Amino acid sequence: MVSLVSVIGLNKIGLVQPHDDISKLIVDAAKAEEIELSDFDVVVVSQKIISKSEGQLVDILTLKPSNRAKSIAKRTKKDPRVIELILRDSKEVMKADREALVVRRKDGLICLNAGVDKSNVDGDTVYALLPKNPDKSAVKIKNGIEGLTGKEVAVIVADTYSRPHRVGQVEFTIGLAGLEPIIDYRGRKDLFGYQLHYKYVGFADEIAAAAELVMGQGVERTPVAIIRGLSRMKRASGTGLSKKLLLGKKRDIFHSS
Amino acid sequence: MVSLVSVIGLNKIGLVQPHDDISKLIVDAAKAEEIELSDFDVVVVSQKIISKSEGQLVDILTLKPSNRAKSIAKRTKKDPRVIELILRDSKEVMKADREALVVRRKDGLICLNAGVDKSNVDGDTVYALLPKNPDKSAVKIKNGIEGLTGKEVAVIVADTYSRPHRVGQVEFTIGLAGLEPIIDYRGRKDLFGYQLHYKYVGFADEIAAAAELVMGQGVERTPVAIIRGLSRMKRASGTGLSKKLLLGKKRDIFHSS
Repeated sequence: MVSLVSVIGLNKIGLVQPHDDISKLIVDAAKAEEIELSDFDVVVVSQKIISKSEGQLVDILTLKPSNRAKSIAKRTKKDPRVIELILRDSKEVMKADREALVVRRKDGLICLNAGVDKSNVDGDTVYALLPKNPDKSAVKIKNGIEGLTGKEVAVIVADTYSRPHRVGQVEFTIGLAGLEPIIDYRGRKDLFGYQLHYKYVGFADEIAAAAELVMGQGVERTPVAIIRGLSRMKRASGTGLSKKLLLGKKRDIFHSS
Repeated sequence: MVSLVSVIGLNKIGLVQPHDDISKLIVDAAKAEEIELSDFDVVVVSQKIISKSEGQLVDILTLKPSNRAKSIAKRTKKDPRVIELILRDSKEVMKADREALVVRRKDGLICLNAGVDKSNVDGDTVYALLPKNPDKSAVKIKNGIEGLTGKEVAVIVADTYSRPHRVGQVEFTIGLAGLEPIIDYRGRKDLFGYQLHYKYVGFADEIAAAAELVMGQGVERTPVAIIRGLSRMKRASGTGLSKKLLLGKKRDIFHSS
């Protein structure tokens, strides 16, 4: 029997405003497309619409940059107010140059510019931050969808990720509810009975990347995708699930500790 | 109208032997599943079956490790013959510890153990190398499929990738034919007419990651996936297309130059 995963884009969400109920927007958009949400569907939601619904928007004209922000801005030829925004969410600046800042955010995520982003945000000087707690946002959306449909879906909050060593961004998971993000093959046998030692699949990140194939980058107006048919999906409960995808310095063999 | 991408796993390929014709195996497996290949389908093929068909298998009992291999093996507590295999395909060892070697391969790819891998290979001491030239392998499979079906598909050779900063592996693209691997949004306008400066999507890597959702890790016996419905897909010709996904040291903002 053939295995089939469907990646379905929802493009009837419309522009999202502060206080919008993302769960309801998703359920309504699915209905408008005559798509019935099912148990074990994974709903992938673009970080940007969640940030907008949560009011995580800042007009940089309202900011007074710190001395540190000014100093980094001078060195990197960037706007000190944007640097100020980035620093507010960061624990450590790992690298700064004219292209971007690589930071470890307060929540542990390593990414460019702490996720602070101008694209698809209205207003010349308005920037979007990441959702305050993307795992909590995911749980809220999951519960909302279940309340409206009775279906036990999983939810992934996806953001665009610039990667070391590779050209091009891919979507990855910054928030998660209802789904085990990793599939652990270690200790299982391979095709020839050899024990697998290292296979440890970043399943949730693969799902986020797959979602981008229909979601695009905002201009496609498809901020939500439904991923259906994941036979290896395992349910998980609680908040903070996305933390399982974060590699501490000590365990990162790409880097010296 | 809803956008839909289908990820279809082909699990009737069987175990691959040296000199097997991968194109024919794929076309036959698709027929057995009553799947008709179409123009613009992307066929994602696991590196491992290509390596097997190309005879890229080495019994480490036949190897005499160099002094350098012995020295690294001692330091990392690994088998000097495996290190020897890794060094043969490597230009630079970027980091070595007990878990794995991070290398820049002679073909420019940065990855663990130069792609040398034991899993799903028959024989206790037999290891698989990457295909000699994965882009050429992709072109050959593409041409083979077109010869057999008349359909102009694209082909991605996918391998398992351990990532910096993130837990878990994802599939990524090491060989490519017929498909532009990057979607460049730079200079295009976002939802509010703001010009996008940084969006540059690693489309081929997202497709490879999506394929893993049905392919799994060998034990699922699904070494090939067909990805259908990619509305943003752009054709490309020639060999060497996967090189566009390699970030040189100078352009890698995660690292000091």
